[in-house]
Amino acid sequence: MKKLAIIAGLGDLPVSIALAARERGQDLHVFRLSGFEEKRLEAFDHETLGIGQIGHLIKRLKKVGCEQVVLAGIVKRPNFSDIKLDIRGAKLLPRVLKAARSGDDALLRVIVAELEAEGFDVIAAESAAQELTVGEGLIFGQDPSEAELADLRKAARIASELGRLDIGQGCVVCDGLVLAVEAQEGTDRMLGRINELEDEIRGASTAPRGVLVKRPKPIQERRIDLPTIGPMTIQKAAEAGLAGIGVEAKGALLLNRDEIGRRCADTGVFLFAFPKNWS
Amino acid sequence: MKKLAIIAGLGDLPVSIALAARERGQDLHVFRLSGFEEKRLEAFDHETLGIGQIGHLIKRLKKVGCEQVVLAGIVKRPNFSDIKLDIRGAKLLPRVLKAARSGDDALLRVIVAELEAEGFDVIAAESAAQELTVGEGLIFGQDPSEAELADLRKAARIASELGRLDIGQGCVVCDGLVLAVEAQEGTDRMLGRINELEDEIRGASTAPRGVLVKRPKPIQERRIDLPTIGPMTIQKAAEAGLAGIGVEAKGALLLNRDEIGRRCADTGVFLFAFPKNWS
Repeated sequence: MKKLAIIAGLGDLPVSIALAARERGQDLHVFRLSGFEEKRLEAFDHETLGIGQIGHLIKRLKKVGCEQVVLAGIVKRPNFSDIKLDIRGAKLLPRVLKAARSGDDALLRVIVAELEAEGFDVIAAESAAQELTVGEGLIFGQDPSEAELADLRKAARIASELGRLDIGQGCVVCDGLVLAVEAQEGTDRMLGRINELEDEIRGASTAPRGVLVKRPKPIQERRIDLPTIGPMTIQKAAEAGLAGIGVEAKGALLLNRDEIGRRCADTGVFLFAFPKNWS
Repeated sequence: MKKLAIIAGLGDLPVSIALAARERGQDLHVFRLSGFEEKRLEAFDHETLGIGQIGHLIKRLKKVGCEQVVLAGIVKRPNFSDIKLDIRGAKLLPRVLKAARSGDDALLRVIVAELEAEGFDVIAAESAAQELTVGEGLIFGQDPSEAELADLRKAARIASELGRLDIGQGCVVCDGLVLAVEAQEGTDRMLGRINELEDEIRGASTAPRGVLVKRPKPIQERRIDLPTIGPMTIQKAAEAGLAGIGVEAKGALLLNRDEIGRRCADTGVFLFAFPKNWS
């Protein structure tokens, strides 16, 4: 097995990947990005570097002998005026700035292209930790009803369009109506506002209904940022009174699957993976 | 002048239309929808009827001699199990239920079609009150900068797509990034969450920047529900730290224009009408 480098932001994903690599005995080195240092990664061989130090990163990757690289974790839109650039970073800057104007992903696509040009094997998070991905069908909870399936289908179509426009990955649909759309606020906050909707919109009901769907952007560089589902997603969906959650098969990562299963059982929220060809 | 009937929900729009009709000396009768009775319309000839009483409405329109009809105001998604139907309403119910599943507007399109079939002249709010519409160009405040124009263009394109999908009418774009998208929560609440975004996303800045755009849905029945801008929209945009607001020329209604102008002057928020062909 090639030695794996994780270029890591914040969150569960880089930690899950590191744990999976250790589990299968793969050598590992972690590069935490300055300003986004995930505490739990200190349990692994690691160092920290600035987001503008592309030249330094490539030098260090060669030095520690990593051939395989995965980018994972949350790196919020950096404040470009604060970034310290090395020479190579400075050369890339015009492309990065141009890319940043056309959306989040574009910025990281530039970095991936640069690493590939140097001969590194940039792999997707789900390749680095296949146990996190989901196959088609019901994952946890009860099978969705006909009405829930109709909402899942509509939400999947809307999420695909939102992704195509580089707006976001998620939306909530209930009885055919798009209740909320995720842009920069993130899934948890989008779910948090469902309960603030008036009864006339949300519909007064004691039974949970409506679904959250998260789906990768069609234009998305899948090696960077697949949608993730964690225990908190299940919890927030339940608090929003939703019946279930839909993700695209092979198009989402489950972080802490055992705990997700427990929360689904406790709350009655289902987790369903729809086929990639739903649109 | 034909006698005008306003079929009215809540909000400033039906009030503005009624005032404009009175101003030009047009005879007027107001039908307030049960559950959505706008208090300020009690200053005009009025009655209240249920949303399912289409037969009764048509009978009353003929009785009071209204030939021209405008639908205006906020009618939130009704709870269908609570609606009392007359015979004509009951006949329409299957079409209404089917229409309601495909989005908000569809429901009202059924009612418009029914009124037209009876020979009524259903007119748009902006025809009933032309003084509310906006022509192309800057309306209040300072001309947008190049960067603000770029954000306006992007937001206009996104809003057009959101409308095509029947999601909503508005979005906020800052430095090319879609910060928020409006679905069922409405513009004010969408603006309210801009300040909750982390600095890494919103960008730390003391100067206002980013724009709100509201735009009619391309599929929208324009006689029902053009986007509206009121003094509160300006206020919320200012509180969200936005530089300005864009609307489509002839595609938005300004409610209380004088007060809007004062708020723009006080807050520095610009109001700009872009051409309909922006996309």
